[in-house]
Amino acid sequence: MLVKKEYLSQPQSANCTQKIFVSLIEYQTLSVDTKNLLFLSRLQATLVWTDPELGWNRSVYPFDKVILPVDKVWTPELHITNGITTTMKHSSRDLLVHSNGTVQHSVIIKAEVNCDVNLFNYPFAGDECPVAIQTWAKEGCGTELVFGQLRNVDGSHGDWSTDKVKLKYVRSDRNYILVSLSIKVTNPFITLLLPSILIILADIVSFALPLGGGERNSFKVTLVLSFTMFLIILNNLLPGDGKCSPFIRIHFCVCLILLVVSMLFSLVATRLATEGRLLFCCYSENTGNKDGKEDEEVNADMSVNQLTGSEDNSQLLRKVVNFLEALDAKTLESDRNQMFADKVDKTFFWFYLIFGTIYFIAMTCVMVKYTCAVNHFHFWSEE
Amino acid sequence: MLVKKEYLSQPQSANCTQKIFVSLIEYQTLSVDTKNLLFLSRLQATLVWTDPELGWNRSVYPFDKVILPVDKVWTPELHITNGITTTMKHSSRDLLVHSNGTVQHSVIIKAEVNCDVNLFNYPFAGDECPVAIQTWAKEGCGTELVFGQLRNVDGSHGDWSTDKVKLKYVRSDRNYILVSLSIKVTNPFITLLLPSILIILADIVSFALPLGGGERNSFKVTLVLSFTMFLIILNNLLPGDGKCSPFIRIHFCVCLILLVVSMLFSLVATRLATEGRLLFCCYSENTGNKDGKEDEEVNADMSVNQLTGSEDNSQLLRKVVNFLEALDAKTLESDRNQMFADKVDKTFFWFYLIFGTIYFIAMTCVMVKYTCAVNHFHFWSEE
Amino acid sequence: MLVKKEYLSQPQSANCTQKIFVSLIEYQTLSVDTKNLLFLSRLQATLVWTDPELGWNRSVYPFDKVILPVDKVWTPELHITNGITTTMKHSSRDLLVHSNGTVQHSVIIKAEVNCDVNLFNYPFAGDECPVAIQTWAKEGCGTELVFGQLRNVDGSHGDWSTDKVKLKYVRSDRNYILVSLSIKVTNPFITLLLPSILIILADIVSFALPLGGGERNSFKVTLVLSFTMFLIILNNLLPGDGKCSPFIRIHFCVCLILLVVSMLFSLVATRLATEGRLLFCCYSENTGNKDGKEDEEVNADMSVNQLTGSEDNSQLLRKVVNFLEALDAKTLESDRNQMFADKVDKTFFWFYLIFGTIYFIAMTCVMVKYTCAVNHFHFWSEE
Amino acid sequence: MLVKKEYLSQPQSANCTQKIFVSLIEYQTLSVDTKNLLFLSRLQATLVWTDPELGWNRSVYPFDKVILPVDKVWTPELHITNGITTTMKHSSRDLLVHSNGTVQHSVIIKAEVNCDVNLFNYPFAGDECPVAIQTWAKEGCGTELVFGQLRNVDGSHGDWSTDKVKLKYVRSDRNYILVSLSIKVTNPFITLLLPSILIILADIVSFALPLGGGERNSFKVTLVLSFTMFLIILNNLLPGDGKCSPFIRIHFCVCLILLVVSMLFSLVATRLATEGRLLFCCYSENTGNKDGKEDEEVNADMSVNQLTGSEDNSQLLRKVVNFLEALDAKTLESDRNQMFADKVDKTFFWFYLIFGTIYFIAMTCVMVKYTCAVNHFHFWSEE
Amino acid sequence: MLVKKEYLSQPQSANCTQKIFVSLIEYQTLSVDTKNLLFLSRLQATLVWTDPELGWNRSVYPFDKVILPVDKVWTPELHITNGITTTMKHSSRDLLVHSNGTVQHSVIIKAEVNCDVNLFNYPFAGDECPVAIQTWAKEGCGTELVFGQLRNVDGSHGDWSTDKVKLKYVRSDRNYILVSLSIKVTNPFITLLLPSILIILADIVSFALPLGGGERNSFKVTLVLSFTMFLIILNNLLPGDGKCSPFIRIHFCVCLILLVVSMLFSLVATRLATEGRLLFCCYSENTGNKDGKEDEEVNADMSVNQLTGSEDNSQLLRKVVNFLEALDAKTLESDRNQMFADKVDKTFFWFYLIFGTIYFIAMTCVMVKYTCAVNHFHFWSEE
Repeated sequence: MLVKKEYLSQPQSANCTQKIFVSLIEYQTLSVDTKNLLFLSRLQATLVWTDPELGWNRSVYPFDKVILPVDKVWTPELHITNGITTTMKHSSRDLLVHSNGTVQHSVIIKAEVNCDVNLFNYPFAGDECPVAIQTWAKEGCGTELVFGQLRNVDGSHGDWSTDKVKLKYVRSDRNYILVSLSIKVTNPFITLLLPSILIILADIVSFALPLGGGERNSFKVTLVLSFTMFLIILNNLLPGDGKCSPFIRIHFCVCLILLVVSMLFSLVATRLATEGRLLFCCYSENTGNKDGKEDEEVNADMSVNQLTGSEDNSQLLRKVVNFLEALDAKTLESDRNQMFADKVDKTFFWFYLIFGTIYFIAMTCVMVKYTCAVNHFHFWSEE
Repeated sequence: MLVKKEYLSQPQSANCTQKIFVSLIEYQTLSVDTKNLLFLSRLQATLVWTDPELGWNRSVYPFDKVILPVDKVWTPELHITNGITTTMKHSSRDLLVHSNGTVQHSVIIKAEVNCDVNLFNYPFAGDECPVAIQTWAKEGCGTELVFGQLRNVDGSHGDWSTDKVKLKYVRSDRNYILVSLSIKVTNPFITLLLPSILIILADIVSFALPLGGGERNSFKVTLVLSFTMFLIILNNLLPGDGKCSPFIRIHFCVCLILLVVSMLFSLVATRLATEGRLLFCCYSENTGNKDGKEDEEVNADMSVNQLTGSEDNSQLLRKVVNFLEALDAKTLESDRNQMFADKVDKTFFWFYLIFGTIYFIAMTCVMVKYTCAVNHFHFWSEE
Repeated sequence: MLVKKEYLSQPQSANCTQKIFVSLIEYQTLSVDTKNLLFLSRLQATLVWTDPELGWNRSVYPFDKVILPVDKVWTPELHITNGITTTMKHSSRDLLVHSNGTVQHSVIIKAEVNCDVNLFNYPFAGDECPVAIQTWAKEGCGTELVFGQLRNVDGSHGDWSTDKVKLKYVRSDRNYILVSLSIKVTNPFITLLLPSILIILADIVSFALPLGGGERNSFKVTLVLSFTMFLIILNNLLPGDGKCSPFIRIHFCVCLILLVVSMLFSLVATRLATEGRLLFCCYSENTGNKDGKEDEEVNADMSVNQLTGSEDNSQLLRKVVNFLEALDAKTLESDRNQMFADKVDKTFFWFYLIFGTIYFIAMTCVMVKYTCAVNHFHFWSEE
Repeated sequence: MLVKKEYLSQPQSANCTQKIFVSLIEYQTLSVDTKNLLFLSRLQATLVWTDPELGWNRSVYPFDKVILPVDKVWTPELHITNGITTTMKHSSRDLLVHSNGTVQHSVIIKAEVNCDVNLFNYPFAGDECPVAIQTWAKEGCGTELVFGQLRNVDGSHGDWSTDKVKLKYVRSDRNYILVSLSIKVTNPFITLLLPSILIILADIVSFALPLGGGERNSFKVTLVLSFTMFLIILNNLLPGDGKCSPFIRIHFCVCLILLVVSMLFSLVATRLATEGRLLFCCYSENTGNKDGKEDEEVNADMSVNQLTGSEDNSQLLRKVVNFLEALDAKTLESDRNQMFADKVDKTFFWFYLIFGTIYFIAMTCVMVKYTCAVNHFHFWSEE
Repeated sequence: MLVKKEYLSQPQSANCTQKIFVSLIEYQTLSVDTKNLLFLSRLQATLVWTDPELGWNRSVYPFDKVILPVDKVWTPELHITNGITTTMKHSSRDLLVHSNGTVQHSVIIKAEVNCDVNLFNYPFAGDECPVAIQTWAKEGCGTELVFGQLRNVDGSHGDWSTDKVKLKYVRSDRNYILVSLSIKVTNPFITLLLPSILIILADIVSFALPLGGGERNSFKVTLVLSFTMFLIILNNLLPGDGKCSPFIRIHFCVCLILLVVSMLFSLVATRLATEGRLLFCCYSENTGNKDGKEDEEVNADMSVNQLTGSEDNSQLLRKVVNFLEALDAKTLESDRNQMFADKVDKTFFWFYLIFGTIYFIAMTCVMVKYTCAVNHFHFWSEE
């Protein structure tokens, strides 16, 4: 109980710096926030340093080591340079002091680290983020860190897995842990990619539906609106644009536009199938005329009908035949329209299929192959 | 260890003020909340000041500089005047004191700053917000800030990018950082504008669908309800009204009303196409009469049918012809209705298209060109 | 540096109370939570009081005023009586003491204030809520507040605007700020009222759709389900019932029931149009009989057909005529059903339209005119 | 200023216990979480106790009562035994001490109390939950509470209303407040029960839709999916199963199954109406044969047609008649199928209606009448 | 009042360790987070230890036991080794000290414990998670725990029930509580499994719908999109992949693919039923030719019609017959297409039904029977 002298300031010495030996760091990634491009990490560091004023003469005080409350002695403070928030907590309220002044202690650091994770290849994304560890040092005064071992704890937890962690040195006061993060593909694949592929597939196959019945249009509008839903989910998940903004967003946009184009084409083709024309301007005069004529004809028929009661059967039969022929002609015209619309439809389908396939292949290549370089060290750039 | 005297109050002097030199401020915008019109910012400030009572005679105490725990000496406090919450934390638990009493320290300030960001041109929005930095000063007593350098750190993070930051002086105690914020267009464009444009486009093209089959109405009601969904998303994103409330909200409202009008017209046109009349009041008396007559006729036919077994073929044939003519007449009438509805439909379509186009051009002009002035300094207005 | 005596308890005097002059209060409403009926407010109060023991003889200590750390002297504590949580923070870590013992200080109070905001006329809601300011006082001991100026800061922020604030006195220890809050109508109008009005309108116009095609029913079920969605949004926004529960909820309920009744009627009318009867019980015996007869007839025809190869044309023709007449009769019957259903439909439509209009007028009157009185002071009632 | 002796430990006396008189408790329920079965409550307690060592001789120190800072004297601590989290805060930073050592103080306790609220009759749910108040006491040492008045403050706030509060005693150290909570029915009724009843009603009335047109099936699938949505909302609101799990969940499950059964029946009945058979196995041989025959016949007709140019009219007419008779026969068969399906449909409808009605009556009885007993005191059971 | 000596460091002794007797632990699971694979637990531990320096001579100070404020004496600190966050709070601000130095105290520990709960058999999931309790000990110095009783409090609260808790010893400093957790099946069953089974069932029964009317396709697309919704809900609930990732996710994926395949087949079969061919390439030349021929024929008819006014009836009648025969032939062809499509449809249905049934049986077996082993102790592995 001799040592209760409240040595709360850093040990003063001639060279003004204090060496801290970080014997073990246990690194753990708690969660990754892809929307705001930051991740939570937890470091448990075991620190060893020598505070000469805490030592004692073993002849006076016979114990080899004593336990001291942590808030009665000076302890070094570690920071995460690129952390938005850093909180350092003592992992215990006591620490061990040896008779020569060597102090053993361990601290837990939680930090929200800013890292522009490269999400270009999104559901296959992976990147290396630095976690820069720093102590307080100014104009040659302060503390200096000497690192020992580094261990990755429970790397495969959550939606991102921490593949490996490495200690890197830039300058004596610029050490960082390089954390290799990679996303677990299953979850975003099932939630985003699979449904989007299935929707596009359904859109292509929906060309099999007949143009006339109105079925195809309602089918396609359902697909478009579902896709919009996925787009909104995606945008809630991924960050805004930038140099390496996720390619999947552009892909989803292209898909949405493809779906809408195919839907709009389908609407127009339906028009073509029923009317045979596209233009809305010409007030269908021909039909009007024909109608007029038919009108007269019918009136004529009507009058004729009431004129003579003694016509022969052939007259009557001819009327039946005329009626049927008119019906036939109508059917024929509608058939011709239908056939024309069908041809246009098929042409569009093949064009759509070929363009879609080429696009998908190109997109897959870009998404898998292309790598986008991000500089993660701009927090050190100008200091 | 001489200096542990706990000088916790501000150095007292004759003129009662203390100059604080803020040598470097690193500014970072953490996030912008467009719903509540505030943004989170983080400032890391390096402070230098002189506390004469902390100095020492180098002949007595030979060190040039010492490290002191931060909670044992007085430190100035910085505030954000227009911040709803301001928290200042010491970036380290130690600070450096030179023998002449000069103290070097750095602090981290996090503030939730109130700024009526001008969202009039919403997805293309950008504004300059002041972050007023203040220290405590009252009746000539207190501290005074002298600013050095200002640096913008990691400006392109998140959905808003911090384009540049500038130091401005209004009065000796009224300094502020002018932060130029601009929204990244991609995200809101894809989530809000693109789908809304596609929905309006689909609505216009849906006039190509035939009136009769019921397809068009169900198509349009789907569009209206989808649009409502976007309106709700938008309202969760943007703030209530005011002088410079986002124009996009009015635009969305107009779009919704356009969609509903077009849907209601479509419903009415369907009625027109099937019945040829709009009015619900007149209980279709003609049809009733005609039915009655036809009824009698049929009855007559029936009776005649059972009367004579020896009629001639012409009689029978005439009946066939009558039947077909009645069918024909019905078709004709329905055709006439259809044609009339079609004409009305086309007229409406052209009206709708022209009005829609004019509106879109006007809207785009207003959204891009018009700038709405907001006074960001009312927090200083009456002091 | 003479005054560091840690005068941390309230100045003791004979009459046991201490007067605190609140020279300026800056009031700000941060947000209003209509679901839980409470609002967050922030008050910045400038306090002036005299602590005789902090004074000094200017002949001894020549300075006129000194700066003291706030945690070394006693400071009064302000409370919000009707606040669920109240946190008072010092706006600075230093305060100013004059040689006569007068202390100048300012504090920031954040409080979550319970206020049964009158939401009866919801999207046009507005109310006056008291924020009762209190200091600690018991049995004549304690502190007493004397108020100076009150200022409303940034009143038009967020979804609610703070129109004005007034200081009111009930008793010497019961002072309160009366805050006039009013909702900004635009946001709830666009999100809730506008879509609901459009849905009801679409429901009324949907009577224009023909009964037969099945279109009207699917249209109406879509409307009902969309309306349900709005009802759920509304219920997440507004609080449970009570004396002045929002009238808009009852209105939405009535609307939902109107929509469902109109949908159910539409279903039944469809039945009427196809079958001509409503009752499900009678197993359509007539049709059965007629079928039986037709059956026989057909069989007869069939047999006759195969009996004689030498019948005359009239026999054959009659068969054709019979067939056509049967078809005609069927069409006639279905027409009669249709017409009957149409009449019923029109009657219902007019009834629905009139009832709906009357209801809307009445509802609007009640919503705009009727005011519901809420007692906001029950937190003081029985003390 | 004599009394600043820092009496921070509990007054020691021979019997080792200290009586605390709780003169007034103001109870308030802040919110009830039905999902996790806990509620937040706030208690403001006025405490009076005697600390002999704080007294003084009035002849020495003439004041009758003094104000002391709360952190310089010992204060008792109250706990909520069945609270997951309990936080006790002093309602003021000063307290009043009389010359005889009587201390007056008031504290605010916020507790998250665990209470298995009986939700069996959910939207009509109500229960009595104990809030056990406790102080620290061990082996005869500690403090003992003596209760005075209890008041319920602002009971009708939020979705639950606190009907009344009562003080109960089990043992000298086991006192609790019995809080009678009851849910406000309006909100869950409108959000959950009303739509579910309307959906079931619409399902029953949808039997009025004709089987053939495909309308009924799409109507029913919409209903089923909407109901699923309500089921998900319900499950997010209510807790997992247990002894007294909410009956409404079972009810919703039964409703969903009823809806699905009715939908599946409707699908099958549609099949019956179009095909006349249910079995998918037999590859419709009859139709095949008939087709074959018709085929031959037609071929025969064709050949005959081309054979003789000089057939008589009767031959030709017979063909017409044959064609019409075939059509008639087809219609007849389809009519017979239709009628059969109709009969099955009606039978099912009546069965469904009767079963549904019986179920609803039984369900309502159970929901309103049956009470499920929950033991709220297991936190004391084994101590 | 003798004992106020502030013994804040751990009692020093020759062997440098201090035994702490944990007489009772009350364990409670507060909640389980299946998404991030961690659970919140709350432990209330009663500790007894002997601090010789706190003892006193009863002859000097006559009391047998005294109450001391907890922040004036040294207390041991307990940690949860595998906890991400551990907070230990004193359950009271006072503790009891006996004259022989025995101290009685109780603490409340809240910990967020990392546990890779085995969710392979998800809605029937259950697992045993260790909660490792630890005190501070380093190089033979520190504290050592001796455990007494362990009690499970309120195990059936929330969505997970804590079935039993057991104390286990690995090494003297590695003790843990093995917590048996099991999910309550009702909630996920009703929210996830039941709707998914009903959707699959509806999909199978929807084969009863006729191919032609377009009904089946819209029915199936609704089912697919609803199922996607459930997939998204599921993915928000369950964690990413790993060794023992939930089987239900794979099951849902297979179901979605089954539904989409059945929908796509339905689209193609509709094509087959209307066109009789699948291939889009061949521009339907036959139809074109036939049309051409019919065209000519009609023209011929037309010309013939206008040529001779004196043809005989047989000519006219033949035309009628030709028309009807053409109609008949068309119907026949379409019937043949229909029948072919029907056969394909039935074949697919049986295949789908058999495959689906086999899959469901296999899936159920795997989900119920297969157990996946997870090592929960990797936090100790390499120390």
